[in-house]
Amino acid sequence: MIPGELHLIPVRGLPEIVPGVALGDEVARILAKSGDPVQRGDILVITHKIVAKAEGAVVDLATITPSTLALEFARRWNKDPRHVEVVLRHSTRIVRMDRGVIIAETKHGFICANAGVDASNMMGGDVVCVLPDDPDQSASRIASEVAGFTGFRVPVIVCDTFGRPWREGLTNIAIGVAGLAPIRDYVGQTDSQGRELRVTALAVADELAGAAELVMGKLDRTPAALIRGYDYTPGSGGARALLRKPEMDMFR
Amino acid sequence: MIPGELHLIPVRGLPEIVPGVALGDEVARILAKSGDPVQRGDILVITHKIVAKAEGAVVDLATITPSTLALEFARRWNKDPRHVEVVLRHSTRIVRMDRGVIIAETKHGFICANAGVDASNMMGGDVVCVLPDDPDQSASRIASEVAGFTGFRVPVIVCDTFGRPWREGLTNIAIGVAGLAPIRDYVGQTDSQGRELRVTALAVADELAGAAELVMGKLDRTPAALIRGYDYTPGSGGARALLRKPEMDMFR
Repeated sequence: MIPGELHLIPVRGLPEIVPGVALGDEVARILAKSGDPVQRGDILVITHKIVAKAEGAVVDLATITPSTLALEFARRWNKDPRHVEVVLRHSTRIVRMDRGVIIAETKHGFICANAGVDASNMMGGDVVCVLPDDPDQSASRIASEVAGFTGFRVPVIVCDTFGRPWREGLTNIAIGVAGLAPIRDYVGQTDSQGRELRVTALAVADELAGAAELVMGKLDRTPAALIRGYDYTPGSGGARALLRKPEMDMFR
Repeated sequence: MIPGELHLIPVRGLPEIVPGVALGDEVARILAKSGDPVQRGDILVITHKIVAKAEGAVVDLATITPSTLALEFARRWNKDPRHVEVVLRHSTRIVRMDRGVIIAETKHGFICANAGVDASNMMGGDVVCVLPDDPDQSASRIASEVAGFTGFRVPVIVCDTFGRPWREGLTNIAIGVAGLAPIRDYVGQTDSQGRELRVTALAVADELAGAAELVMGKLDRTPAALIRGYDYTPGSGGARALLRKPEMDMFR
């Protein structure tokens, strides 16, 4: 490939994921079989949904007894009260709750619709998937699984599609990160005119996740992608570096 | 290239941009010279800063007399009052104004820090750049300029780096779009289990802009990138489709 270029490579043909599957091993194996194996310096982006499946982070709605709040909200907005109840149980703070929408903060500190509880693309029936218990840990384990096959570690990003205020449409972002610094910081560096850069920190892990979505799509069962050629900064802090501290947030 | 892959190609070696330059022509010309010309189906992403330079969307601070509000805010937070004044003049609504930060709505409907007024990477001296007057129109004009050289049109995205609530770090997003639908809509489509998709609309123009940033960087003077291999949906609505209607926005 041409220096400076970056390639986004879909990971196709993964088997149906069941609890306990070593996802990193599966991905490395299928890419090796495809003739385009994982290379040093690649970044693996993998959707939270198959991570949740592999980790058994799913809830059978048949086991859920909705609370009064869940029943009332579901009745008013024509929702499944059991689904609403799972959302409430995975929330640590309700940020907005109106018009059938729940924007909640999760125990990880993410602020997103339905606390990340997701009903689509699951095993069928009344099963919803929830966010991985510790997505940074998930990313790290997947990196180790890849290394078990290839002999070297690559950074891993676990992603999900989140909405955002003010703008329509969801974008894919990083909820778990292992092996790279999620923020690229230009503090103190100067531009071509010697002027200190005002744009000091770019959320590159979110941009990498968004880029990967472009080859993953929602319908064609491509839950992972490789990014090749990106000159990342190694790092160990995980996706928590992407969360704004409450005292610095003007939009709580 | 392998089917399904997507390539991000930096556009390097652009000359210093002066007012009146036909940016699309410059980009197409330099890529042709590099041996990797623009191809049908490519998407051109170009940073708003050189668009602003080409359009003369810059303000000489020497010409600005700050208002009382600008003087007070600048004094309190150690800012240049003339810069604050330019921000206020390019705002139609102040969303937050605290801690030295102004989050404002622009006449285009964007909500962002400093109403998009930017001091870095400019011609040196006390010159700031403001957002293009009509970024969709800018994108469309650049697409025409590319077509003047290549004989065919490609979609163009004019981008800027915006912050967002709740998360640290900026990401590159689309502020002007020509030739593609900025949102990919899955409404009514079903997943592999026949379940209707809840994630219905992805802001692919923002993901494309973020992907392009990964090869553009902030320091190495690469203000444009080509995206090759993305199966976009043609569209003519521009970036305004990415703006949430006030009555639908829970975070005004």
